[in-house]
Amino acid sequence: MKHTDRASGVWPPATMPFRPDLSIDFDRYIEHCRALLKGGAHGLAVLGTTSEANSLDFTERQTTLEKLVSAGIPAEKLLPGTGAPSIGDAVRLTKHATSLGVKGVLLLPPFYYKGVSDDGLFAFISEVIARVNDPKLRLYLYNFPQMSAIAYSPDLIGRLIAKFPETVVGLKDSSGDVAYVNTLLERFPGFAVFPSSEALLLAAMKKGAAGCISATANTNIGPISKLFDTWNSAGAEELHRQVSAVRNLMVKFPLIAGIKAVVAEQTGHKDWARTRPPLDPLSSAQTKELLGELKKLDAGALV
Amino acid sequence: MKHTDRASGVWPPATMPFRPDLSIDFDRYIEHCRALLKGGAHGLAVLGTTSEANSLDFTERQTTLEKLVSAGIPAEKLLPGTGAPSIGDAVRLTKHATSLGVKGVLLLPPFYYKGVSDDGLFAFISEVIARVNDPKLRLYLYNFPQMSAIAYSPDLIGRLIAKFPETVVGLKDSSGDVAYVNTLLERFPGFAVFPSSEALLLAAMKKGAAGCISATANTNIGPISKLFDTWNSAGAEELHRQVSAVRNLMVKFPLIAGIKAVVAEQTGHKDWARTRPPLDPLSSAQTKELLGELKKLDAGALV
Repeated sequence: MKHTDRASGVWPPATMPFRPDLSIDFDRYIEHCRALLKGGAHGLAVLGTTSEANSLDFTERQTTLEKLVSAGIPAEKLLPGTGAPSIGDAVRLTKHATSLGVKGVLLLPPFYYKGVSDDGLFAFISEVIARVNDPKLRLYLYNFPQMSAIAYSPDLIGRLIAKFPETVVGLKDSSGDVAYVNTLLERFPGFAVFPSSEALLLAAMKKGAAGCISATANTNIGPISKLFDTWNSAGAEELHRQVSAVRNLMVKFPLIAGIKAVVAEQTGHKDWARTRPPLDPLSSAQTKELLGELKKLDAGALV
Repeated sequence: MKHTDRASGVWPPATMPFRPDLSIDFDRYIEHCRALLKGGAHGLAVLGTTSEANSLDFTERQTTLEKLVSAGIPAEKLLPGTGAPSIGDAVRLTKHATSLGVKGVLLLPPFYYKGVSDDGLFAFISEVIARVNDPKLRLYLYNFPQMSAIAYSPDLIGRLIAKFPETVVGLKDSSGDVAYVNTLLERFPGFAVFPSSEALLLAAMKKGAAGCISATANTNIGPISKLFDTWNSAGAEELHRQVSAVRNLMVKFPLIAGIKAVVAEQTGHKDWARTRPPLDPLSSAQTKELLGELKKLDAGALV
């Protein structure tokens, strides 16, 4: 089976800027997306957790995609999140994104009910695929049990691939569970698996991963995309150490707020530091500490 | 301060019937709601967890309320759930419900992000109230950490009551944490607190609770509403034992699916047993066991 249409590379989950009234600053968002692509990103995993997509309303999630495509960001470089707790909303968001020509969609499991069975998840996803009813649909499962409290088990993934081999083509793992990622890579060759951290990228590439979808790629895209492009070369270990050091520092702070604080510093636009409730921005003290520590790492291009 | 407009009594979270194609069977739903009111319910907490509201899409949640009101169910007997992970969606659902004249709304916290601070929740709810901007809004917090993974802490509730004394008027507690409920009843006299179980109703009434919003009231409304109406009388203890025995049996099975299986038996309409994915219906064996055990309890009016 050919898998030439599957996503690969470093796809940053582009963070979203909000104005003082909490509305989306689309111009600044488009500017950030363009900068990531220019900086080496192979595509953009927009409207995921780092984009605060679940803090956007139903209409805003669709408008965001339309604005990006209208601005000339190629739709085939977009992997938007279209998950929702209800079949109906997930279908509408997925249909809309697919009709715009995106590379694929990242689907969270229905994240309200807890203790849901694999049978229930299988029924949910089967129903979504049946109702979207579009041969162009490429679905990447979005595994993030720390947020959704529901995991895509390897057995469930095997059932989905068997039933929808041309549709269920990959997975982003945000659990950080290396054993889980390795199990998927071993059991499902050709399935496009993306760990969520550049610190796991090199080891995962050696086992056949598709790349990574990492929040911290928002602030460090150059070195991370270079690591992907050269992972099989002599300098890869040193590059791995560099990007991992930055990553390991970033995750000591609330991740989404921390990324936004760094982007605010990088761009000189203080509004970038704003989050939508219920997320809090970093405090001034946290921001100062994070930026100071980044400078010590000689991550000079960043801050 | 007068609190004559605050909800009290037994408000069942009316369960939703789905057709074979998973669409809502509105006629049957209205019939069930009428039966609950006729059976003694003081009102209906529609569109909560038991109603599978988060498995309904954004439009269905609004249509459901409109259908109920059009069918002649008094709006002031409705406490719909209007929570959503985003401010925008929560505002639209809350505005819509308030404009229909409902008694109040039950608001889940934003349930996607985990580890959210009290400050973040306070900002979220303050923003929802400001944007709904309707003096008729009466907000009941919906505390269900087992599903939302976020709790309304007593300190946060105190801050909300202090800022919005006429708006933030009550809480449904689905955590089952008696100490939490007692803390709220002690700290916030006049705040309308509803435990989620009839087994906790009698003890809670003695401490000043407003009633209960219990899933299992869907199948046993007569005795439970009688317990509320007569809690301060001689027969209350015996009634408490009876309704608690039924409740304690019901919660041994997946609760929502179990309630639907019993309603299917009570009404003779097998379609009632259907759930929307990701929830599974009871298996035949589970259904047989549940109905058999209920009969043994001499809950004869039920099955």
